[in-house]
Amino acid sequence: MPPTDVGFVGLGTMGAAMAARLLAAGHTVHGFDVRAAAVTRFAERGGRPARDAADAARDLLVIMVHDAEQVENVLCGHAGALESLRPGATVWLASTVAPSYARDLGTRLDEAGVTLVDGPVSGGLAGATAGTLTVIAGGDPAVLDRARPVMAACAARVCRVGGVGAGSTVKLINQVLTAAHIALTAEALALAARAGVDPRLVVDVVSSSAGTSRQFETRSPAMLAGDHTPTATVRTFLKDLGIAQDVAAELDFPMPLAAATNRVFTMAAEAGHADDGDTAVLRVYEDAAGVTVSAP
Amino acid sequence: MPPTDVGFVGLGTMGAAMAARLLAAGHTVHGFDVRAAAVTRFAERGGRPARDAADAARDLLVIMVHDAEQVENVLCGHAGALESLRPGATVWLASTVAPSYARDLGTRLDEAGVTLVDGPVSGGLAGATAGTLTVIAGGDPAVLDRARPVMAACAARVCRVGGVGAGSTVKLINQVLTAAHIALTAEALALAARAGVDPRLVVDVVSSSAGTSRQFETRSPAMLAGDHTPTATVRTFLKDLGIAQDVAAELDFPMPLAAATNRVFTMAAEAGHADDGDTAVLRVYEDAAGVTVSAP
Repeated sequence: MPPTDVGFVGLGTMGAAMAARLLAAGHTVHGFDVRAAAVTRFAERGGRPARDAADAARDLLVIMVHDAEQVENVLCGHAGALESLRPGATVWLASTVAPSYARDLGTRLDEAGVTLVDGPVSGGLAGATAGTLTVIAGGDPAVLDRARPVMAACAARVCRVGGVGAGSTVKLINQVLTAAHIALTAEALALAARAGVDPRLVVDVVSSSAGTSRQFETRSPAMLAGDHTPTATVRTFLKDLGIAQDVAAELDFPMPLAAATNRVFTMAAEAGHADDGDTAVLRVYEDAAGVTVSAP
Repeated sequence: MPPTDVGFVGLGTMGAAMAARLLAAGHTVHGFDVRAAAVTRFAERGGRPARDAADAARDLLVIMVHDAEQVENVLCGHAGALESLRPGATVWLASTVAPSYARDLGTRLDEAGVTLVDGPVSGGLAGATAGTLTVIAGGDPAVLDRARPVMAACAARVCRVGGVGAGSTVKLINQVLTAAHIALTAEALALAARAGVDPRLVVDVVSSSAGTSRQFETRSPAMLAGDHTPTATVRTFLKDLGIAQDVAAELDFPMPLAAATNRVFTMAAEAGHADDGDTAVLRVYEDAAGVTVSAP
């Protein structure tokens, strides 16, 4: 399949990295972000700057903004993309939103002859930069096939998990597990420090034992170093944990571990760490126990 | 170091597998269990049957029983091993007990001139059978060195994490993480089923994403199959989660995720699954949500 014209709205950390992959793959990318500086950086890397979302609209439009409210603005706000999208166009919504929102949006786009791929991604900035993201896709198989060549530029895997709404559901499940594993890593290391055991030895033992997780392995070095520089922020996880709890409430489904995780992240935000990296949840435990994991 | 005479008390599933490794390594093993059938099976595999714990006592004595109460009986009960242990003997306590109990026991053994390695293991039955356990050891380095040749027969790693009490602490931390990851796997798969998403696709996506854990990878196949045959039981994890909560309470340390995990395992036991495999915690979520993960 030859490179195509692609629209891209949302050139934040993740979006910029994904758009850079599309450019490197030879696609012509028309990009917009409400922050002018982000558009300038994008243009410096070879992208075509768009004046607004309507100007970025192409037959394949990627949206990678923070939340559903921003998605609404991109599509239906002032100079929104929906007025410029042609019948037959496809929107790849890569943001993490509520499944109910994705389904509602799918219905509204359908009325305009536009199809939706509910396709949030997993892999973070490292995956976006390396082009090894996983797209967790919900949507019609034929529609998904149209988006695949563009997805392939930034993703190692495209997994179809059902119709519109299913992609968001599975992404939220993955986020809940990720956040819970981060909180558990903090709970484990701070308990060790409180009990007088060197947290570095806990990391050494657990990493090769039954209690390990991808997050334990990737986040514990930062916690041992006391370095809470953001990759993903506490705020982003709180947003997704909130959506997951809304989903659980709608379905009358009990999620005690997700609820406990939400409380830990909420406490971290209330203590002033909303815009710190997710490992800052460690501070909740350190402050409660009067210990410091990085200097036991 | 040449093979030695070893005492071994507790020939249950884990103990029998560990004792078999010692026999295969050429050690002479004097074994006892309160269940006569376990001693008979041990003798059939080449072990020397002991009449009681006192009769099994050697200069290195391995104890692999269920809990601290059984450890007390082995050492200080009727025909207990302590009366037969010579000054200079070493006890390798491989059971998972409270750190405070391990420390107290260490003090009492010390008065008899006997040294203690607080050395619970990680790796389960598969690790014991293959000889790839991790010993999470607390104790004096010189004492630990005496036990190493015997440990090497059933463990790939011996990690010293501090003095007596530290081994139990780190083992409990590993158990809390393991149990929480099992509960989270159940929470994730049952939510998928409740939301109308195929749990098999969730396993496929999460296994290669940020939300994965060792337990997600090893336990999700059994959950998808609805097979809750015990490897470790709900009861065993409940015992260890209870000890962990006691440790947290003693240290005035908050463990919200461990507490939520304890509630899920408690509900599983109350629903009649105490002696089922740990994956039976899935039933708590399935029953609450009215779904079956194995037949979505």
